[in-house]
Amino acid sequence: MYEILSQIKSPDDLKTLSRDQLKQVARELRQAIVDHLSQTGGHFASDLGAVELILALHTVYSVPKDKIIWDTGHQCYAHKMLTGRLERFSTLRQYGGISGFLRREESEYDLFGAGHAGTSISAAYGFAVARDFAGKSNEEHVLAVIGDAAMTAGLALEGLHNAGHSGRNFVVVLNDNEMSIAESVGALAKYLAKLRVTPLYQSLESRTRGLLKRIDKTPGQVVFRAAGSVLKHNLTHLVSTENSGVLFEQLGYQYIGPVDGHDLDLLIDLFTAIKSIKGPVFVHLLTVKGKGYEKAEEDARKWHAVTPPMFKETAEGTAASSKSSGQSWTSYFSKTILELAAEDPKIVAITAAMPDGTGLTPFSKQFPDRYFDTAIAEQHAVCFAAGLAAEGMKPITAIYSTFLQRAYDMILHDVAIQNLPVLFCLDRAGLVGDDGPTHHGVFDIAYMRPIPNMALLAPKDGPELVQMLRYMVQEHVVGPHAGPIAVRYPRGNAPSVEWPVESAPIEYGKSEVLLDGGDIALFAYGNMVVPAFEAAKTLRAEGIDAALINLRWAKPLDAETILTYAKKTRCMLVMEEGVVHGGVGSAILELLAEAGVTDVRVKLFGVPDKFIEHGAIPILHQLCMLTAHDFAAAARDLLGKPQPEPVAVAREARHESLTA
Amino acid sequence: MYEILSQIKSPDDLKTLSRDQLKQVARELRQAIVDHLSQTGGHFASDLGAVELILALHTVYSVPKDKIIWDTGHQCYAHKMLTGRLERFSTLRQYGGISGFLRREESEYDLFGAGHAGTSISAAYGFAVARDFAGKSNEEHVLAVIGDAAMTAGLALEGLHNAGHSGRNFVVVLNDNEMSIAESVGALAKYLAKLRVTPLYQSLESRTRGLLKRIDKTPGQVVFRAAGSVLKHNLTHLVSTENSGVLFEQLGYQYIGPVDGHDLDLLIDLFTAIKSIKGPVFVHLLTVKGKGYEKAEEDARKWHAVTPPMFKETAEGTAASSKSSGQSWTSYFSKTILELAAEDPKIVAITAAMPDGTGLTPFSKQFPDRYFDTAIAEQHAVCFAAGLAAEGMKPITAIYSTFLQRAYDMILHDVAIQNLPVLFCLDRAGLVGDDGPTHHGVFDIAYMRPIPNMALLAPKDGPELVQMLRYMVQEHVVGPHAGPIAVRYPRGNAPSVEWPVESAPIEYGKSEVLLDGGDIALFAYGNMVVPAFEAAKTLRAEGIDAALINLRWAKPLDAETILTYAKKTRCMLVMEEGVVHGGVGSAILELLAEAGVTDVRVKLFGVPDKFIEHGAIPILHQLCMLTAHDFAAAARDLLGKPQPEPVAVAREARHESLTA
Repeated sequence: MYEILSQIKSPDDLKTLSRDQLKQVARELRQAIVDHLSQTGGHFASDLGAVELILALHTVYSVPKDKIIWDTGHQCYAHKMLTGRLERFSTLRQYGGISGFLRREESEYDLFGAGHAGTSISAAYGFAVARDFAGKSNEEHVLAVIGDAAMTAGLALEGLHNAGHSGRNFVVVLNDNEMSIAESVGALAKYLAKLRVTPLYQSLESRTRGLLKRIDKTPGQVVFRAAGSVLKHNLTHLVSTENSGVLFEQLGYQYIGPVDGHDLDLLIDLFTAIKSIKGPVFVHLLTVKGKGYEKAEEDARKWHAVTPPMFKETAEGTAASSKSSGQSWTSYFSKTILELAAEDPKIVAITAAMPDGTGLTPFSKQFPDRYFDTAIAEQHAVCFAAGLAAEGMKPITAIYSTFLQRAYDMILHDVAIQNLPVLFCLDRAGLVGDDGPTHHGVFDIAYMRPIPNMALLAPKDGPELVQMLRYMVQEHVVGPHAGPIAVRYPRGNAPSVEWPVESAPIEYGKSEVLLDGGDIALFAYGNMVVPAFEAAKTLRAEGIDAALINLRWAKPLDAETILTYAKKTRCMLVMEEGVVHGGVGSAILELLAEAGVTDVRVKLFGVPDKFIEHGAIPILHQLCMLTAHDFAAAARDLLGKPQPEPVAVAREARHESLTA
Repeated sequence: MYEILSQIKSPDDLKTLSRDQLKQVARELRQAIVDHLSQTGGHFASDLGAVELILALHTVYSVPKDKIIWDTGHQCYAHKMLTGRLERFSTLRQYGGISGFLRREESEYDLFGAGHAGTSISAAYGFAVARDFAGKSNEEHVLAVIGDAAMTAGLALEGLHNAGHSGRNFVVVLNDNEMSIAESVGALAKYLAKLRVTPLYQSLESRTRGLLKRIDKTPGQVVFRAAGSVLKHNLTHLVSTENSGVLFEQLGYQYIGPVDGHDLDLLIDLFTAIKSIKGPVFVHLLTVKGKGYEKAEEDARKWHAVTPPMFKETAEGTAASSKSSGQSWTSYFSKTILELAAEDPKIVAITAAMPDGTGLTPFSKQFPDRYFDTAIAEQHAVCFAAGLAAEGMKPITAIYSTFLQRAYDMILHDVAIQNLPVLFCLDRAGLVGDDGPTHHGVFDIAYMRPIPNMALLAPKDGPELVQMLRYMVQEHVVGPHAGPIAVRYPRGNAPSVEWPVESAPIEYGKSEVLLDGGDIALFAYGNMVVPAFEAAKTLRAEGIDAALINLRWAKPLDAETILTYAKKTRCMLVMEEGVVHGGVGSAILELLAEAGVTDVRVKLFGVPDKFIEHGAIPILHQLCMLTAHDFAAAARDLLGKPQPEPVAVAREARHESLTA
């Protein structure tokens, strides 16, 4: 099926192939990506765009001796296929299967894990320094590969800046596809756009032939081996047209580019030549997202990721972003924010390069002047929001839970110390499934709860998210408790549930009692209210008088209700889809201790103190014991009641059974 | 004493003064800074260097209508003196007195608080956007003032980049004093150094007179009002010599500079002219740290901050960094790391612009090749450390607790997920005193405890810090629990205490029982062991059989010892100098719940859920009820024993009594 590719067991095998054979490998890689993703889904457009780059790097360099550090990682499927993982590719992003990102545990060729954007330069600089300590500066090559979108991250800029002055042998490869998930924004994007229209770097021979005589004896020249011929010239001077790359040169790099990132011959020649250059080098490649798959080339944003079934022949499949059955949490947010903004001109919306993911695209169309995409720059997004809030605006700051980790200091230092009413909307809070440990949004409760002035909310369902958003914008930020507030909600579709009581209005620090009861109290936060409700119904059917409280607030806690049920039942369960250490359950324990309420049995349910693998969310819920079945079983245990069926196996045993 | 300055009640008063009078104000400001800091101590060199800049800005602009957003804030004493706070200046950094940084609560002229570096551009961009929404783009000016050192922060780069493309009226003023606290490092520093040697921007008249005819009809010119005369020219072309400022121009700014930041006439003319420029402007000022105080000019690093007594006439005082009575926690770290590094070539040390503060300066001299100052770039510092650790190095990553907040995502995503043995050394953990809420290092336990794979240590005294550092480097990173590990220790001198038992070797997850007892168990973490020991001795003298456990580890907890004493005493106190929400005490409650141990009275001591003011540490300890007296009183309460003296007033009442 993949005639040559299937024979490639490691990148060493590439080194014996002819150029024509390598081009065949590129075609087969592209085919394999389309074939497999039709079945498994996954990131798509960026992977098609990086095929020649990855192939050229693995042909020229010898990983793991040479260190190629990738950024973000979801564009590395070709890298995985070339490093012994083609046969397992059908397990991509499945529980127990290969990751959609890079992982050190998965392969010796994945030298540094990635998931969040902008890490590769800093990490690669660490590898370069370590190499130099080992006295191998001239034997081992270190490269950081980074996309243009990731270059706007403060971390990438810090790393670029710090490594640039080092003088160490170090290559930054910019994979510039002119847009990231969404459009790239800001001055850097404009600058790169200018560079893109400078004359393209041609095949080395044609470019250099004419120059050879003139520069043959120029000082500072490098020996340039390309396609068997030896050419001498100063690479920088050769490729730097007036003004081009000057920004990178000012930061200490020799700039080479722009280069056609799909010209395999050129790439192989170029990287072969770069091996001889001393000091920091910045290579600027132009690639096309979705390259080779017409529909994806036309709309790379839509084809950023795909979900099966995607039919490769007809290209009639659906890209992930357009797929939707039922109503997602995101769409509740998306519609509500539109409505609220129509009523209130103080509302502005901020995203860090995720307009589609966060549901802000409709807002960006309806209110283009009130919409701000900071690019991948969460720190700036939050500090910028603080400035807006200081001037009386209502900044809806919509950032995934996992990415908001980047702005922790700004939440604390710029927003919370000043008690500024920034409105955080945390999508993808909880277990996100296929993307795995770098993307699970399970830390936000624990990292925000200790911050003074912060208020934390989570809804049980879509309509309650709407209520909460209205409350945040219309009441909280103008009320007596005005200050920062965050609402968290998970990935996927919101549940549709018939609740025993009508949803009460949102009040500051007030929970919602869904079921009264005297035997045991179930306290659930956010999306855990649904399985807790299932558990409560089961228990009640068995004659156990279970109370169910929708906590709504992780901070401030509804002390009155919690203490009332603690004293009444002396037996409590707390459920949250976040880390159990430092989470809502922990807050409840603090409250009980502070109030001097002892002799209460409390069992906390949450994400255990381990990084959770990728896999379908229902599997991960089982793994973390976050199911109605687990809750009911624990309740019976606490109450000394018999289990109607054998109790589920413990987490470790489950893990083994699930991976087996 | 300050003839004109003492008459300045608000910046409006500056606008009626002649240039000669303004120069007199500059002299008086400088004198006032020297006079007051001789008494109060505080940041020094940077404040002397910013006098003319601050004076010029307040003369030309009308704050708070115009928005001047300062960075970091400890260089703003002249700003405070010009905005109604001269008379209160003797209370600088004292409890209840004026802050050493900027605070919105303190003055309407402090438009945005600051403390950590690099926030001003992002925040100011928020103000600019809000202004534009209010339709005041041409009426209100927005400026961000930032130091050269802060410019290396990823946040500043993100903000610079995002605001640069906006086209909004927005001014970034770079106060370039060629070094920050320590030497500025990296490519940006080199680039700025190059700019510095380009011809200085001269007085406007002399520069423009010759050019007037030539450019009088150039398109794109601006009307330039300077010192009463109207000059027309294109500012950018006037000041941009070949290549100068091109980096900032590529980012979307009109670059003006370099300009002598002590030439008051020039600054006033320049900013008056800049008021008319549309779009983003970048003004590059050269200033001298310590300007006007000879010794500080000569060694600005030493004179970064001063502690009294500093005698202004003789300049024989001691700068803060050189003062030391007793042995500081930092110096234990400093010496131990030197010794360990001499034995182990794998040890490298990383600081983010704090070589003196963290105690790494001796290391930097002894092992210059193994020492890395990333500049103010904590994100990069941690990701870089991850890269080094991935290659088998042992990176000592020495960052203040408060500044490590910047790298939260990198600790989690780049270090912990990959379980890389990065060695975090967190100085200034706990309450730091005079610097106040932006600098208290009270969140680290709570923000790191929820991170899987992370191990957290804190020593009771200096010798135990030495033990812990040895353990980390020699045992932990090569042992069965190898992975990230952090040790925290506070600001100031380490205590010298006679302990009842010899310090046991450090073992993974093992606490140290200092006193056995059956009535109540005191569990203390880090520097809280000393007051807990005092409390235990007091209690024992009263016949209460108090146990004292030095926890040593916040993660993993010593479950065995904790559960043993919980069951034995049924009465526990937990003390930590960190936020009580999510801290060690919270971890102990989780452990008890998990183990099903109920009927235990537990009282948690830690920093309450409020941002704690600046002030002397003993005052803050009283405020937070973190004293031996409080612990003993709480123990008696829990046990139902009488108090030998009236119980201390509650925290709120204390707060009032302390501020009265």
